[in-house]
Amino acid sequence: MGNKVVALCGGVGGAKLAYGLSRVLPPEELSIIVNTGDDFEHFGLHISPDIDTVTYTLADIAHQGQGWGRADEKWIVMQELEHIGGERWFKLGDRDIALHLLRTQMLRAGKTLTEVTAYLAARFGLRHAILPMSDDPVRTIIETDEGLLPFQDYFVRRRCEPTVRSLRYSGAVNAKISAEVLRALDDKNLRGVIVCPSNPYLSIAPILAVADLRARLRKLSAPILAISPIVAGLALKGPAAKMMGELGVHSGALAIARMYADFIDALLVDSQDAALDGRRTHTDPPLRFGDIVMTSRDDRTRLARECLSHLDCLRQ
Amino acid sequence: MGNKVVALCGGVGGAKLAYGLSRVLPPEELSIIVNTGDDFEHFGLHISPDIDTVTYTLADIAHQGQGWGRADEKWIVMQELEHIGGERWFKLGDRDIALHLLRTQMLRAGKTLTEVTAYLAARFGLRHAILPMSDDPVRTIIETDEGLLPFQDYFVRRRCEPTVRSLRYSGAVNAKISAEVLRALDDKNLRGVIVCPSNPYLSIAPILAVADLRARLRKLSAPILAISPIVAGLALKGPAAKMMGELGVHSGALAIARMYADFIDALLVDSQDAALDGRRTHTDPPLRFGDIVMTSRDDRTRLARECLSHLDCLRQ
Repeated sequence: MGNKVVALCGGVGGAKLAYGLSRVLPPEELSIIVNTGDDFEHFGLHISPDIDTVTYTLADIAHQGQGWGRADEKWIVMQELEHIGGERWFKLGDRDIALHLLRTQMLRAGKTLTEVTAYLAARFGLRHAILPMSDDPVRTIIETDEGLLPFQDYFVRRRCEPTVRSLRYSGAVNAKISAEVLRALDDKNLRGVIVCPSNPYLSIAPILAVADLRARLRKLSAPILAISPIVAGLALKGPAAKMMGELGVHSGALAIARMYADFIDALLVDSQDAALDGRRTHTDPPLRFGDIVMTSRDDRTRLARECLSHLDCLRQ
Repeated sequence: MGNKVVALCGGVGGAKLAYGLSRVLPPEELSIIVNTGDDFEHFGLHISPDIDTVTYTLADIAHQGQGWGRADEKWIVMQELEHIGGERWFKLGDRDIALHLLRTQMLRAGKTLTEVTAYLAARFGLRHAILPMSDDPVRTIIETDEGLLPFQDYFVRRRCEPTVRSLRYSGAVNAKISAEVLRALDDKNLRGVIVCPSNPYLSIAPILAVADLRARLRKLSAPILAISPIVAGLALKGPAAKMMGELGVHSGALAIARMYADFIDALLVDSQDAALDGRRTHTDPPLRFGDIVMTSRDDRTRLARECLSHLDCLRQ
């Protein structure tokens, strides 16, 4: 059996499980592939919200509860921007800005996002691989009843209020999977892949949309376990359930299983949703059950260990 | 006699006289043309040091004595940049960064530097026109004994230590004089032009190098008065005297008069340099004498009034 684990991850919810995995696996046994579909340029800065959330979470400096940014943050730049009439809908803390400035400078100097992410993670004392899904730009665009909205306009500026009609991942088909991501997925010692409990449309789908990444997962011999971001029909965080409703999908964990049916070996759902097993058809992936709600830091490591043991069972 | 005054201005020293002029002339009677040869990109931000010094000085928020930046400044971003290994040779205060972020965003959105400068000046409550010499990039490059150095590398990173061999103003010849600058210079009611006591090589020469600006000044019928940045052979501030020595020019005010001989009607020098009048040749511009050292805010308005009265004398 291999010992290398790959996690696919978006922002807050996914980052919690990534944190747990990073506490139970040594650096050389974990690669975290992170969504960059919500990356954008703001004030000329290259901002990578999910990568930063994962980095800050693993470094234990993420703000608890807010869902973005750092715990120990200052707001002088934002206050001054307010004074001189700059946009304020996307909150940028002073320490956060330092990171965006350095990232932007390094990218301009020709470094890849993968290199910049590795450099910054190391500066925060992290040793586990945080891998952007691609070094090429992929941008999630949401078709809503108010027209096409770039991700951050939908998610932050409009607070997910517009009704979603469809999503597109601009640039994804032509984006290259990075060499580091390919190496992680092609590793002969792959123990398995974990799809973190992140928003299926906004966090996981952009990763799957990059080049032939979804087809590669489908062909993988190592087991793939996804963890439902939906518990008892509600999203653990964010607009997942609301979006499912708007897209005409029943907002249950079973719908998540069906979205990933072509490449996962099982979906881990919460024990509260045990009744779903009776509603499975023969084309649906198997369900596994557990306590998937992560409230404390201990929950994160507990769930990480459960996921690994489910993965290992799926292999046998 | 016209009532419109144009000032050519660099950073600190020039900004002090521009401040004085702005206190004795109403907004519609003064245009301040500012050097942009030391503009540069750093961390992806568009930074315009001389424009900012003029803006901050006129708004009375400039740091006194430091020679750059704001009095009421914070340094959280810079501290964090230090933590994550970013460059720190160019000091960026938090409030200053807010302005650079907004400028960068507005330029990216297609605004001209002139428009951005006017917008920001208005936000700081200023009503006098602060005009970048051009909306096209002009970059001062210094040839030194250590090779070619971009302005900020010479001025800030290397603290003017390398020996200067020559200067070039990259992009100047093909840069367009902005419509606003042209309008100010072509104004039928031009009372005169004041060349502020700024570094002749680093602040005034880049302005003169833009397109045919120097030739336009030469043909102007309104009087042109320059104020010496050199008193008793020493620069009031900065490396002017050191550079003159390195370039084989006697570091006296008379050398300033000779640099500008083709377009000025007189050079105002300090009374300490009265002996220079005896060394003038018939090809040198006339000298005027006064107390040109600006220590207090009152000195700035006093000198501004003296400059205006010299201008008016030159016309008659």
